[in-house]
This record gives sequence, C-alpha cells and structure tokens, in this order.
Amino acid sequence: MAIGIGLIGMGVVGGGVARILCDRERELKIVRGLDFDIRKIAIRDPSKPRAIDISSDRFTTDPMEVVTDPTIQIAIEVMGGVDAAHDLILAALQNGKDVVTANKALLAERGDSLFEAAVQNEVGLGFEASVCGGIPIIQALSQGLVANDIQSLYGILNGTTNYILTRMTEAGANFDPMLKEAQDKGFAEADPIMDIDGTDAAQKLALLCRLAFRQRVSSSDILKEGISHITALDIDFARELGYTIKLLGIARAIDNRIEARVHPALVPHDALLADIRNEFNAVEIVGSAVGAQVFYGKGAGELPTASAIVADLVAIAERRKVNLGPAGAPLAPLPKADLVPADDIQTGSYCRLTVHDKPGVLAQIAALFAGENISIETVIQHGRSETDGVPLIMITHDAPEAAMRRAITRIGALQAVTEKPQIIRILHP
Amino acid sequence: MAIGIGLIGMGVVGGGVARILCDRERELKIVRGLDFDIRKIAIRDPSKPRAIDISSDRFTTDPMEVVTDPTIQIAIEVMGGVDAAHDLILAALQNGKDVVTANKALLAERGDSLFEAAVQNEVGLGFEASVCGGIPIIQALSQGLVANDIQSLYGILNGTTNYILTRMTEAGANFDPMLKEAQDKGFAEADPIMDIDGTDAAQKLALLCRLAFRQRVSSSDILKEGISHITALDIDFARELGYTIKLLGIARAIDNRIEARVHPALVPHDALLADIRNEFNAVEIVGSAVGAQVFYGKGAGELPTASAIVADLVAIAERRKVNLGPAGAPLAPLPKADLVPADDIQTGSYCRLTVHDKPGVLAQIAALFAGENISIETVIQHGRSETDGVPLIMITHDAPEAAMRRAITRIGALQAVTEKPQIIRILHP
Repeated sequence: MAIGIGLIGMGVVGGGVARILCDRERELKIVRGLDFDIRKIAIRDPSKPRAIDISSDRFTTDPMEVVTDPTIQIAIEVMGGVDAAHDLILAALQNGKDVVTANKALLAERGDSLFEAAVQNEVGLGFEASVCGGIPIIQALSQGLVANDIQSLYGILNGTTNYILTRMTEAGANFDPMLKEAQDKGFAEADPIMDIDGTDAAQKLALLCRLAFRQRVSSSDILKEGISHITALDIDFARELGYTIKLLGIARAIDNRIEARVHPALVPHDALLADIRNEFNAVEIVGSAVGAQVFYGKGAGELPTASAIVADLVAIAERRKVNLGPAGAPLAPLPKADLVPADDIQTGSYCRLTVHDKPGVLAQIAALFAGENISIETVIQHGRSETDGVPLIMITHDAPEAAMRRAITRIGALQAVTEKPQIIRILHP
Repeated sequence: MAIGIGLIGMGVVGGGVARILCDRERELKIVRGLDFDIRKIAIRDPSKPRAIDISSDRFTTDPMEVVTDPTIQIAIEVMGGVDAAHDLILAALQNGKDVVTANKALLAERGDSLFEAAVQNEVGLGFEASVCGGIPIIQALSQGLVANDIQSLYGILNGTTNYILTRMTEAGANFDPMLKEAQDKGFAEADPIMDIDGTDAAQKLALLCRLAFRQRVSSSDILKEGISHITALDIDFARELGYTIKLLGIARAIDNRIEARVHPALVPHDALLADIRNEFNAVEIVGSAVGAQVFYGKGAGELPTASAIVADLVAIAERRKVNLGPAGAPLAPLPKADLVPADDIQTGSYCRLTVHDKPGVLAQIAALFAGENISIETVIQHGRSETDGVPLIMITHDAPEAAMRRAITRIGALQAVTEKPQIIRILHP
C-alpha cells in the first residue's frame, strides 16, 4: 500500500525531494518495499512553473489541507520561516502524521513544543536535513554512537563562512571582497547576516546539543561571534603560528554543565578540521568508547538536503509499515542545560595589537595580562616602524573570557596601542 | 521484559561489550526502554580470570548452548575465525536469533549463506563492527544515504598499514623498522601478514561493495597489493610530486560493472584522505545526491569495536520490541558483481626506475611506454652518478594495468635499468 506524502512548500529543496523520490522509485519499491505517493503539495504561487511531473490537482495554496488530509501519513515541511511553519508542523503531529523538516531555525527557536508533540502523539519528527545537509550526523548521534557518552563536538557547521574564510586564506584577501565572491557564486545569500554572524551555526549547535547531551540548549544562550572582523593579516599571522582560522561551533560536557559557543577559532594545522575547505561542513565528535570521529560532506544545497529528507522519510516509512513508533530515544521532555556562563569559558587567545614601537610598551602590556593572571605563550613582532604602529601578536594560555576581556579593555586604552585589539580564540582539541 | 543476550567468545572485544552494557545500563533502560541481560557466555578456557562481574554459572565451554538457548534472543559472535563461527552463526539465525558480529573475514569469505539465512529466518545480522570499528559506516550506507546511487568509495580501511605508512612518512624510515615499531606499540600483530598484504582491507571492501552496490563481491576476486615493497625513497619522491602514499580500498561503479581494488596509492596532498594519520581509518563515499562525504575514526580496538556491536544490538532490540523485521534492505540474495578485470583497470602510475645515467636511456624507456600507448605526465631526475645508477621517476597518465605491466616488463629488461622498477598507482579522485 502506498504511503501518502504531503509537501508543505515546493522551493529548491522540495523540488529535490520530488526528483529523488521519482529517480529512486524503483529502488525504493523493489528493494525496500516502499511505495511513496505525493498526494498534496502546498505552494504559495500556483502560477509559477514547476519542473516536476506532478498532476496540477495535487497542488494547493492552503497548507492546512496537507496537515489535515487523512490520506497523508508523512508531511514534509520545506517552506522555511518560523511561526507559520511551527503551527503547521504542530497541527500535523497532532493529527498523527510523521513530519520531516530541514528547518533548523524553527527547531532551534521553537523546537521544544514540536519535540513534545511528537512524543505525545507517538509520531516521528525527522530533522536530519536541518544540520549539515546530507551528512547523516543526526542518525550517527542518535543511533550509531548510542554506546557512547558524548564528551565534546566541534563543527564547521556553516558552509558560507567556511567558503569565505577558505578564500580569504587562499587568496590572501580581506572579508568584504570574499563575501561578494561568495554571493556571486551562490554560496552566500543576498542578506548573509544569519550566516556571517554565527546565528545559523548556533542554531545547528543547539540541535546537536539536544542529541549529544540530551539537554535543551537555546541557540540564543550560546556565546556567539561572527567572522566579519577577521582580516587577511590575522590569517597570515595565524598561519605563521601553525593555525588556520575557522568558524567553529563547539560544545563540551564539563562535569554536569554544557559549554556551548560559536566563534572564529585558530585551528592547529594538523587537525582534520583545518583541512575542511570551501563550502564543506564537518563535525568532530568525541565519544567515550569510539574516541574522535569526523563526519564530512556538503552541508547545504538542493540534493544534499533532499537526500537527508528522503533518508528520514524511508526510516519513518519502514517503521510505519509495522506501526513501530519513532526511532531512537525520545527528544522531549529534556532538562534545560546548565550552560557554562560565557564569562567562565576558558580559551587561549590570539591577540593582534597595533602598537607604537617604543621601549616599555611590551612591558606595559605584559603587566596588564599578568594582572589578570593570564600567561603568555608566544610573542611575535616583525619589523620596525615610526609611523602608525606595528603589529604585535601575543598568544595566551587558557584564561577565562571575563579576565581576557578586562585585560584587553585596559590594553586597548594604552596610549601606545593605536587600534582596537583583535582577539581570536584558539582551539586546543 | 529483559532481552536475553548470548556471547560467543569473551576476548578483548567481548569484554568491551560487557563493559559498555554495564556502564550504560541506566541510559539504555531509562532513555531507550531496553533491558539487556547477558544470559550465557561461551568461552574456551573456564580457568582464565575475567575482569567482568558476571556470575560464573553463565559461562559455558559449549558455544552450541548459546545458539540453542530459548531465553537468548540476540547472539553476539566475537570468537573470530571462519568455519566454526560460520556454523554457530548459521545455527543461531536458523533458531530465530538475531546475530551481531565483528567478523569481517567470515562475512567476506562465507557471508552469502549467512545473509541468506538472516533473510529467510527474518532475523537481523548486524555487522557494523566488521568495517572501520566504531565508525557508523554500515548504517550510513544502508540507511543515511538511501537516497543516493553510490558512485564510488575510497577507504583507508586498515589501521596497521596506515600507521606504518604514516610513521615511514614522518620519520623518513623504511618499512621493516616501522613494522617493528607498530608491533611494539600494539598497532600490528605478531603475524601481520593479513594486514600488510591487503587481505584485511580487501575483506572490508567486499562488505562495503555489498552495501553500496547491492552486488556480491568476493574478497579473493579483488585486485590486491600490499605495502611491504614501499620504500622511504618512494615516499620522498611522492611528497616532491605533491602526494602522500596510502593503502587504499577503492570501489567504483562503472557502467554496469564494479571496479574493486586494494593497493598503495599516491593520494594528492589536498585530498582529505592524505591527512588521515596513524591508526585511524576513513572512508570517502561519493553519492549521486550528496556528492563526497568522508567518515573518519578509529577502525579497531576494544571499545570502538564494542561501540559498534552495541549500536547494532540497540537497533535490533528496538525493532524486536515490536516484532519489526531487520532494518534496511535485505542483503541476500544479491547478484554476483560483474567485476572489471584487473587487466582493464585504468590508473596513472608512479614509476621509479634505477638507471645508468647515460645518453639515450630516457629515449629507450619513453619509446617502450609509447609502444603501449602510455603517455608520460612528469619526469624527475636528480643529480648524476657514474656508479650504481640514479633514480628516474616517471608519472604516467591513466593506462590499463595490462599495458602498464607489459611496458614495465620490457623496461625492467633493459640493460640500462639496474633494479626492479617500482610501480605505485595514483589516485585521481
């Protein structure tokens, strides 16, 4: 018997899902015994031409028709946005439908009520596509690594920023022209703010925390810093010191608390994450039994995202056939995470200061670091100049964020320091 | 109700399974609703002290007791070996038990009858642990990437050889001392032949082919070459040319045929596989929708392997609870793969010749390559010497194995060529 599918939205990803279901119909039917039938597609603009071969009477402009249709067992939400999508998914779950979505913003901001509704109604809420596109990272965390306490995860979770940082590194260019290039090549949106300020990565990190640590982390509580202040000069100095700059999402279990943060980080050249180039994503997971594992692939795009949606669809359908409930452990209710306060997070830092090259300046700066109990690992100063100031690079050992901030505020106020200090955290894996 | 587990064998991996089940008992019971009870453990030597806290009356020296015990629902085979393990697993499957095994040699050599018995008896045969230890690569291929036609896979599938090649590369050392070091450090066995001659990697590749291409590939039909002939000199020249030498398992779908091979390969420095160091494993999978993905982690060891076994156990138990059959698509019967004959496989090659440095030698060699229609991409010759001969490195474009072999036989017979030519294939991803 065919399984009724309803699509809410039919943009790029929705089109990819329809295309994969069509291309792989024979494989799904013969090998897996699954026969999917797209019964309804909710769209905004019925006059828009569609590349897919689906009878026009299956289109509707009312998405409620999808979530109430008794012939639809699984609803796929690919409309995007938060509030309207939330209400539609909630209605679908309450009507006993399984739901598959790629909507990380929705799940990170208003996921609690949806995960709870899925548990209460004993239906599945698949969201493999919401983090790292086609990489089966949700499945790995919820099933493949079930034997492990997850100790930490480190991820390049946003393809746009990784593309920009890679191009800045390889072309020796600054942020603005490389953002423009990313936009021209389709790796950044016209309004790229959610990507470059770290919001997108923080949303994904919040979802990964739910799975890895079985605690609720709100993306708005995550320490977050974007990449627009990173310069070609910083990338050069970082290279000289043995590091590559990446925007990372980092989450760690520390005693009974969770540390979660998204920021640019100096990653040692010999770490695998340093080699992840262009628009690719990667997540390193450290588990109690398996040690470090890395999952790498395309984090976005029509077909990678659609691939993850179809994987969820197949997993749910195989369980539907025998009335088995949702896979894995229930994701609600979960306790709210006790987050390490941002002030207490410990990292080493790369500090690029621009200073007048005069006797005593280094002593002044070193004293201010010492006053906050921050010890210095490395100092680099190249060349000499009597004009605007020279760069002075200092790498610190681990210190709390708050102490670092206090030291830098004082250092920045020194007369000999001519520009705002540049601080980038260091990854010590 | 508790799920009865029987262990066949209690070596290092069996002990890891028992330890994880004990450590994670609460998590499995409360979060997943799964209560495992190890009811019988078949061992060879009852007098050997055991680190695990299991009542002695659960031990038996007769493994048939495990496969016939009606209170055991899932049998875990960790005894190793081929024929005896085959018969025990077959009996367990025929008795309606699910089976989980890490025994790649068994599955690669005599898996057909076991996969068929699992399908016929509608029970599960989990083998995540048999390839790449704790990396959930079997699950990714059978579930996470279900929306994809798998086009190719490239894997560092054997930790022992990757450790030896990494150390040769980093220490500038030859094979023998680094094999010795690997043995001292526990990364190579006392008798390492199955690892270093490529047999272990070929067995894993055969299993990955079954999942990726849904065809049977016998590991003995796979083109196979080990690493013992690789020298520090080759690693140096490869580096100069922009490559790292790795032992790869490669499988590709070409039209309706499968190309499968295990051999040392020159991997370009910018490929992620070039960065996989020491005893780690990695598999790159290229799928029609997701493009390239890489899965990285520890490929062996007590806890990584036990982690994969427990993941299979949990997946099977969750389905058992509701009488759902095995996960994913059935793995038997499958058609036997139409393998590309080894002679027809096309690769570029690194050729290191040792030649008398006299006029006309290069012309002679080039003519012999040209006679087989093999074109040369790069030639390197350093220094000059009137004594034993100088190394002459030639990189060829893709050519069939048979043509390459004919050319090299003739070149090796030239009077000006003083040593057996060294040939290493090149990976063009």
